[in-house]
Amino acid sequence: MTDPFVAEMKATILSINENIQIVDLSHQIEKFDIAMGAFVLSRAARYFPTGTIHVAVVDPGVGSERRGIAIETERAVFVGPDNGLMIHAAEAQKIRHVYELTNRSLMRNEISATFHGRDIFAPVAAHLASGTSPSECGPQVGEYVGSPFPAVRVEGKYLVSAIVHIDGFGNVTTNLSRELFEIDETNFPSKISLYVGSRQFSVRFVRTFSDLREGEVGALFDSHGFLELACKEKSAATKLRVSRGVSVRVLRNPVG
Amino acid sequence: MTDPFVAEMKATILSINENIQIVDLSHQIEKFDIAMGAFVLSRAARYFPTGTIHVAVVDPGVGSERRGIAIETERAVFVGPDNGLMIHAAEAQKIRHVYELTNRSLMRNEISATFHGRDIFAPVAAHLASGTSPSECGPQVGEYVGSPFPAVRVEGKYLVSAIVHIDGFGNVTTNLSRELFEIDETNFPSKISLYVGSRQFSVRFVRTFSDLREGEVGALFDSHGFLELACKEKSAATKLRVSRGVSVRVLRNPVG
Amino acid sequence: MTDPFVAEMKATILSINENIQIVDLSHQIEKFDIAMGAFVLSRAARYFPTGTIHVAVVDPGVGSERRGIAIETERAVFVGPDNGLMIHAAEAQKIRHVYELTNRSLMRNEISATFHGRDIFAPVAAHLASGTSPSECGPQVGEYVGSPFPAVRVEGKYLVSAIVHIDGFGNVTTNLSRELFEIDETNFPSKISLYVGSRQFSVRFVRTFSDLREGEVGALFDSHGFLELACKEKSAATKLRVSRGVSVRVLRNPVG
Repeated sequence: MTDPFVAEMKATILSINENIQIVDLSHQIEKFDIAMGAFVLSRAARYFPTGTIHVAVVDPGVGSERRGIAIETERAVFVGPDNGLMIHAAEAQKIRHVYELTNRSLMRNEISATFHGRDIFAPVAAHLASGTSPSECGPQVGEYVGSPFPAVRVEGKYLVSAIVHIDGFGNVTTNLSRELFEIDETNFPSKISLYVGSRQFSVRFVRTFSDLREGEVGALFDSHGFLELACKEKSAATKLRVSRGVSVRVLRNPVG
Repeated sequence: MTDPFVAEMKATILSINENIQIVDLSHQIEKFDIAMGAFVLSRAARYFPTGTIHVAVVDPGVGSERRGIAIETERAVFVGPDNGLMIHAAEAQKIRHVYELTNRSLMRNEISATFHGRDIFAPVAAHLASGTSPSECGPQVGEYVGSPFPAVRVEGKYLVSAIVHIDGFGNVTTNLSRELFEIDETNFPSKISLYVGSRQFSVRFVRTFSDLREGEVGALFDSHGFLELACKEKSAATKLRVSRGVSVRVLRNPVG
Repeated sequence: MTDPFVAEMKATILSINENIQIVDLSHQIEKFDIAMGAFVLSRAARYFPTGTIHVAVVDPGVGSERRGIAIETERAVFVGPDNGLMIHAAEAQKIRHVYELTNRSLMRNEISATFHGRDIFAPVAAHLASGTSPSECGPQVGEYVGSPFPAVRVEGKYLVSAIVHIDGFGNVTTNLSRELFEIDETNFPSKISLYVGSRQFSVRFVRTFSDLREGEVGALFDSHGFLELACKEKSAATKLRVSRGVSVRVLRNPVG
């Protein structure tokens, strides 16, 4: 961070309650990239303790009519803009209620038109972390902006989705979870065919990176249980020349 | 950080008092760029709770005759080099006293010639955060290095200053605060003319980024109340080809 | 971090014990670069309070047969892969025992094949930080992978080693510590000759960066007491066109 924004949010939180423990999730989401923020939040949120308050800001619509919301799930509360950023993470924890942020007494006295992260979301989160009930945030809302991720579709024998993230190692991640496949320990495949965009790849299916040979691209279930393409100590994304958003199509039962 | 320096400072602080809560401000200030450090510190400091100890290290003169100082304000204490880095932030909180750091018992036993951040500033800050009075740091000093920012001048109907920061979004920030303008809700301007360096721009004056059209450059008061040039989801700095330090000249009453 | 990995580790730690204080060391070690991780860890570890649990993950061999280990030293415990990453840091604190991580009850219930940092090292570290004895991690091991750094050799009047790190300022760092030289305050040299790779340099020997003239490359003992080549407010590495791993050869007594 070359900007003071993150520190301003933390300072605002600690001004409300010095005893709140703040954990950084990421401050290097590409500007305005809601899908990238949604991905990182959804993968990390599940590991946090029950009762965590997540505050998320990827907010191109700040100052416009877009609402601020607090999403109460069975395990946590998510506070941020109503632009789809937090829905994927929240849905995985079962959403109980969604509240619009209207209670002025939970926000900073002065609210700028350009930085609701500091002036609304951080103070609301600090109050929630200090015991305020989510229902005090404002009225319940029934509709909100949905997830930026493509839904997983089943088309006959195929699962269809898209690349949702390229991680820092160049691993190519999908949102096709292990449970969607007809794979278990008795028929664990040795190879898998994928259609990525308009191209077809056939690669080895392995358990972990070290099963690959230097420079070999293979498929595996990543540490969250999602189908991933990886290349040992190299970038699979560079090697395959693929990027986020490209469609992925694969047999549910790669062996069959 | 690819270097251990920040962790060494934090470890030093926690070795003195494990209960100190440390908040990162920024570790990506350009090397030796005192003005950039001063900007980020001054914008963020106001949001921290009363009683905060700020420790700041942008320190090209380490090991030379430049002094270390502690600046006690009405709300906080700033610890770091006497090179102008902390003055802008401290002045905004009203400076009470400035002390030279001479009390050896507040520092590490071994003081290197190249890293006073770890060996002097961090331990002094840790002691201050643990209850040591700023007056124990050393003798009061009457003169110290001033702010690296250009002063704001009033020239007839004009305010004159300079670009003080380009943020990560490419927003172009000045140190012309809202209070300097003859603008209120009754005469909020729709357009504004600026002289930036040798060029003149006339742009729309808006409340927030989302009032701009895709690719349009406009002016607004940023979340700290300073005049800023922004471009919706693009870099205004790139679009206008301007950089930090370039002069800015604008009418106090853009409507008039 | 554009990836959720670090946050997942922190969340895992806090799920085990919310009161653990986590300090970031670095998350920008080059991928798979064990030597760079080992360098940063070894330099920073000495400043942490006694009783610190260090968890380190630079882990190209994840999922393979490489073991996880906990290294108990006289001051701290290091938890991570058995690939040399932690040995240099641990040896400096005198190693007491090394344990293989086999106690399943200290790990996450589900262990992925690709992210032992989150599933094994972080939870083991959290348990150690909560009072579990290192001996509960698993059986003691007698052999483990050694340090990735070149040993320092004495060849007649010369010390021979290599460049172990280029820091963010471009300073060129060796692992030749001050104690190895026949230098004290009475014979502190004004110049020093070095063989770096196949080239020879003769540069001024100074106390601190500010003793150098603009653009001058000089040698000094860095803030940890190791021989370093630096250039005032410039990158010595760029100036000398040297990189990590290049050999360094220097007289133990540069004056003699």
